[in-house]
Amino acid sequence: MRATVMHGAGDVRIETVPDARLIEPTDALVHVTRACICGSDLWPYRTLEHSETGRRMGHEAIGVVEVVGADVRNIKAGDLVVMPFAYSDGTCVFCHEGLFTSCIHGGFFGAGDSDGAQAEAVRVPQADGTLVVLPVGEDDALMPSLLTLSDVMGTGHHAAVAAEVEPGKTVAVVGDGAVGLCGVIAARRLGAEQIIILGRHPERITLARDFGATDVVSERGDEAVERVRELTGGFGVHAVLECVGLEPSMLTALSVTRPGGAVGRVGVPQDETMPASQPAFYNNVTVSGGPAPVRAYIEELLPDVLEGRIEPGRVFDRVVRLDEVPDGYRAMNDREAIKVMVEL
Amino acid sequence: MRATVMHGAGDVRIETVPDARLIEPTDALVHVTRACICGSDLWPYRTLEHSETGRRMGHEAIGVVEVVGADVRNIKAGDLVVMPFAYSDGTCVFCHEGLFTSCIHGGFFGAGDSDGAQAEAVRVPQADGTLVVLPVGEDDALMPSLLTLSDVMGTGHHAAVAAEVEPGKTVAVVGDGAVGLCGVIAARRLGAEQIIILGRHPERITLARDFGATDVVSERGDEAVERVRELTGGFGVHAVLECVGLEPSMLTALSVTRPGGAVGRVGVPQDETMPASQPAFYNNVTVSGGPAPVRAYIEELLPDVLEGRIEPGRVFDRVVRLDEVPDGYRAMNDREAIKVMVEL
Repeated sequence: MRATVMHGAGDVRIETVPDARLIEPTDALVHVTRACICGSDLWPYRTLEHSETGRRMGHEAIGVVEVVGADVRNIKAGDLVVMPFAYSDGTCVFCHEGLFTSCIHGGFFGAGDSDGAQAEAVRVPQADGTLVVLPVGEDDALMPSLLTLSDVMGTGHHAAVAAEVEPGKTVAVVGDGAVGLCGVIAARRLGAEQIIILGRHPERITLARDFGATDVVSERGDEAVERVRELTGGFGVHAVLECVGLEPSMLTALSVTRPGGAVGRVGVPQDETMPASQPAFYNNVTVSGGPAPVRAYIEELLPDVLEGRIEPGRVFDRVVRLDEVPDGYRAMNDREAIKVMVEL
Repeated sequence: MRATVMHGAGDVRIETVPDARLIEPTDALVHVTRACICGSDLWPYRTLEHSETGRRMGHEAIGVVEVVGADVRNIKAGDLVVMPFAYSDGTCVFCHEGLFTSCIHGGFFGAGDSDGAQAEAVRVPQADGTLVVLPVGEDDALMPSLLTLSDVMGTGHHAAVAAEVEPGKTVAVVGDGAVGLCGVIAARRLGAEQIIILGRHPERITLARDFGATDVVSERGDEAVERVRELTGGFGVHAVLECVGLEPSMLTALSVTRPGGAVGRVGVPQDETMPASQPAFYNNVTVSGGPAPVRAYIEELLPDVLEGRIEPGRVFDRVVRLDEVPDGYRAMNDREAIKVMVEL
């Protein structure tokens, strides 16, 4: 089958690889119909060391189940399913607590020995715990929004939950990528009164406003902090969604948080440390978040997508075929595209 | 009057300074009867640059009100009061939210222009919001425990609250100083099922066990992490109280936290950064805490002290007179004493 393999920074190839197949009796084999390129895929795109083997890419997908292992009970051939970026058994102690990304028998697609989702097919371990059957046809107009449930919409929601967004609270979103934009949707959905997006790209800002952002701060660093304070009576916001993952963006996030407020971070940290003392400690700011247990959120978010109350699929502004995936990476890395959907 | 002045690392002197006096109509003048040396006083004791002016020291006290300003309504001359380490008006938006350490008109004793409490008297700004009248005589046997409400008991409690300690949870306490020991009391009081103290000093460990610690880990670093995991079925604890403030202790705290758990940090950070990525991010560990709003906790903890249900005063293992305060610093710094009480 054909799959996306990254051999080093900037070196993405579509290659013929061994067909995906069942290995464990708890697996499902899914024929991918839609996949995406993720903002987190851009970190290796910029820094990965060259290797001949390369790395399988992609962790977001919708597809049709081709065959299931002998122990799979809830998923059957022919089901249209959405695949969260992490697989999980749904039965361990952490899954029971809703933290599916820490599943004892879980793992991440496109990491280690797992298949990547930017491919014709993918082996899904722990199929019963991982996959969610979609009650629509595979060419439904809602497909882009449903596809975001595999990662970015759930991740934006996780940032909002970790930042303790509640009705009436003030919110800042650091980062205007697809996750940040979904964070705006999530903050509005949870009842935030004021939603400040920190960003400067016109088309992203327009989308953020459509999604519910009430204010835009296009300054950076200290000036951005000053501007957010001005917009919030001098104190900063209750809740900050950190959707970048760099130390400077974390410093901005901590600096615009009101004393006693919280930062929900979902940007995969690219730096080893974050500020320990000022301003977080003295302001009693809480830092929470991590890889989003999107599996936990699909049931909660799916009705809103199906009934059109949220439209996270609007973050996709480019569609490519599998053999155009390398150019999709380039377009996202050049910020020509917010998020790229792959149609197979 | 006589007061403690630190002129540089290791250089603590008892000096005659201008008498404390009312300045604002919201002030009270308090004749100090009991004060303490704090673990946080040891940071400047080790690192303060020499200056002729020096720094007034001390932020924990019980005393008798001598006189109050014209606008003070709830406190009167003759009242025996406990003084939290921060002053606060009790009326601003942050005080209303319980975050007294972020009071808009507040500040910290022994910092800036504020008086220090290791002295014969102290000017207390925002007296109505700051002071709490004690319903006992000034030589009551409960005096040591009541004195801990000015800082260490409230701070240990804050660590437990920030770490989300609840009935049935597993807890680790990093640091066996007075705050860590009070953290053990707080964790037990909030219903923790298992309380692991990380420490190695026999007399502190004995006290920790008396206070409710169920397990002791005397290893350090990776070995301590391994030991805590062994004691908790391999997963780590739900809640960690970080009562030190160094980057290695924070790394230990984050490393012994179970996925989805929380670190409540109250050790004043002595390092600029803390780990951003592993293990906190991938395990969805929450980091919370900061300077404890002990004023908020006095009402909650006072009945337990008065009725003998908790005995945080047992952390004092040395009593000195004011002119012996320099030796008190030395004794705490040499770990000869856990915590020193100053009787005036």
